[in-house]
Amino acid sequence: MFDALPPRVRVYEVGPRDGLQNEAAVVPTEGKLRLIGALTAAGLPRIEITSFVNPRWIPPLADAEFVAQALRAEPAAVRARYTALVPNERGLDRALAAGLGEVAVFMSASETHNRRNINKSREETWPAFEPVFARCAEAGVAVRAYVSTAWGCPYEGAVAPEVVRDVAARLLAMGAYEISLGDTIGVGTPLQTRRLLDVLLAALPVERLAMHMHDTRGTALANCLVGLEAGITTFDASVGGLGGCPYAPGASGNLATEDLVYLLHGMGIETGIDLDRLVDAGLVARDLLDRDLPGRALAALAASRKH
Amino acid sequence: MFDALPPRVRVYEVGPRDGLQNEAAVVPTEGKLRLIGALTAAGLPRIEITSFVNPRWIPPLADAEFVAQALRAEPAAVRARYTALVPNERGLDRALAAGLGEVAVFMSASETHNRRNINKSREETWPAFEPVFARCAEAGVAVRAYVSTAWGCPYEGAVAPEVVRDVAARLLAMGAYEISLGDTIGVGTPLQTRRLLDVLLAALPVERLAMHMHDTRGTALANCLVGLEAGITTFDASVGGLGGCPYAPGASGNLATEDLVYLLHGMGIETGIDLDRLVDAGLVARDLLDRDLPGRALAALAASRKH
Repeated sequence: MFDALPPRVRVYEVGPRDGLQNEAAVVPTEGKLRLIGALTAAGLPRIEITSFVNPRWIPPLADAEFVAQALRAEPAAVRARYTALVPNERGLDRALAAGLGEVAVFMSASETHNRRNINKSREETWPAFEPVFARCAEAGVAVRAYVSTAWGCPYEGAVAPEVVRDVAARLLAMGAYEISLGDTIGVGTPLQTRRLLDVLLAALPVERLAMHMHDTRGTALANCLVGLEAGITTFDASVGGLGGCPYAPGASGNLATEDLVYLLHGMGIETGIDLDRLVDAGLVARDLLDRDLPGRALAALAASRKH
Repeated sequence: MFDALPPRVRVYEVGPRDGLQNEAAVVPTEGKLRLIGALTAAGLPRIEITSFVNPRWIPPLADAEFVAQALRAEPAAVRARYTALVPNERGLDRALAAGLGEVAVFMSASETHNRRNINKSREETWPAFEPVFARCAEAGVAVRAYVSTAWGCPYEGAVAPEVVRDVAARLLAMGAYEISLGDTIGVGTPLQTRRLLDVLLAALPVERLAMHMHDTRGTALANCLVGLEAGITTFDASVGGLGGCPYAPGASGNLATEDLVYLLHGMGIETGIDLDRLVDAGLVARDLLDRDLPGRALAALAASRKH
């Protein structure tokens, strides 16, 4: 164990998108910009800033254009690499109009979750991706792809690793530069993670895979550790653990960025992130939502400042 | 990784002692008995029920005798293996009078923490242990020993693994049947855990070591995973994650028992615990304290019952 730890890991921040879309409170545009600014100042290299989904479905992110355009006006020197979720071509139109240089698409590994999420079967989803990938290639816009429910589905239960592998392979073949494997409902445990990665890594290049773990049952970091050991070097996380679990109201969702960074730095793995300034960003998020956030390290490090 | 996972792990429940001693609210004796009953019903094999410390220092556990005597009156068939913390001979007198068949003592790996905790240097602590071990041996009472601050000290920072090893070895030599290595302030990260265990396991039998991790920075389960991989088969945890961190008010302390059991069962490791009934116990704890508890799996599993 730990014979070949990576010297450096890339943390992909999803709080402003995956976090805020699952929070009941609607954060005003100015607050979102303050949060994204604090994350950028902490050294987060890549930040998913919003989602160009129909505002009817996700009202908290209805200001996607305003957020993207405000960030576009920043001097290049202070910008992180910004990206946004696009569910379809209509979303892509909006993202391109707002000047995004990178977008993210998503697909469920499980049929039922895909249907409930976007009202399409997986087979119907593929053709809809084609113009998205084609137009992104033409525009020089990078595409990241999420594979949701890779560890389990709220409707179907277990998901076969081979299905996850095939969905991921097809998305890579279509032109995605990176696949983020999502434990959407936070059910994964380490032996399962090992088995899933064994199947995926036999077919796909490890540097194209990222892990997006939810901490709903407290296992996110233990699963990331298995990923690290398997050579994964990109991990998604959400500042303060922003965002609940839509399938278990009151429970935690995203892995907290501070917890991930604390663990990585403690293992001597570089991230380029300043943990102290990341705590500042977490406190901005706590302020904006006016409640305690689930992140453990944020609570501990913020408390230790008072002493 | 995971080539030689243990088929079975023993979970040592510390909620009624380490949890409640760090909670601001004082739970009445009847409530403690309800919680311990629920934990026993869930199949927890060993439960630390209270502390025979001077009530002046830990008022929430001032009813130690009442708790122990009420449990003693139970039929043997429904009892878990109960134990209690004893800080000194006076505490041992009380524990023996209350009929405890097992007690736990504690010692810090770091000099400053030991002094601040019990107002004695480590050198002064050893002689005080002698009569405790001698009288326990005579009475046929088993002694467990905690080594606190094994991953770090709130006053001194890093603690050398060799010091932890020497303290643990001396406690074993005095007659402790098991050493519980405590990450008292929850600072441990996996590579450090690996290095600590490498030093300890070169000198001490793995079956005599337990891990007592705090989740203050979210790393408890990741550290337990390293322990499992190294052959550790006893882990301490607290129902619902009961008990905060005295060094970081508002932050989490003990690893939640539900999180640990969820991870272990997910890896096919037996514990003899019924997770569903453990959630019942967690809900009793939540009720008694009248607040949300930090345990992740408790929140998720309790929420999923409502759907």
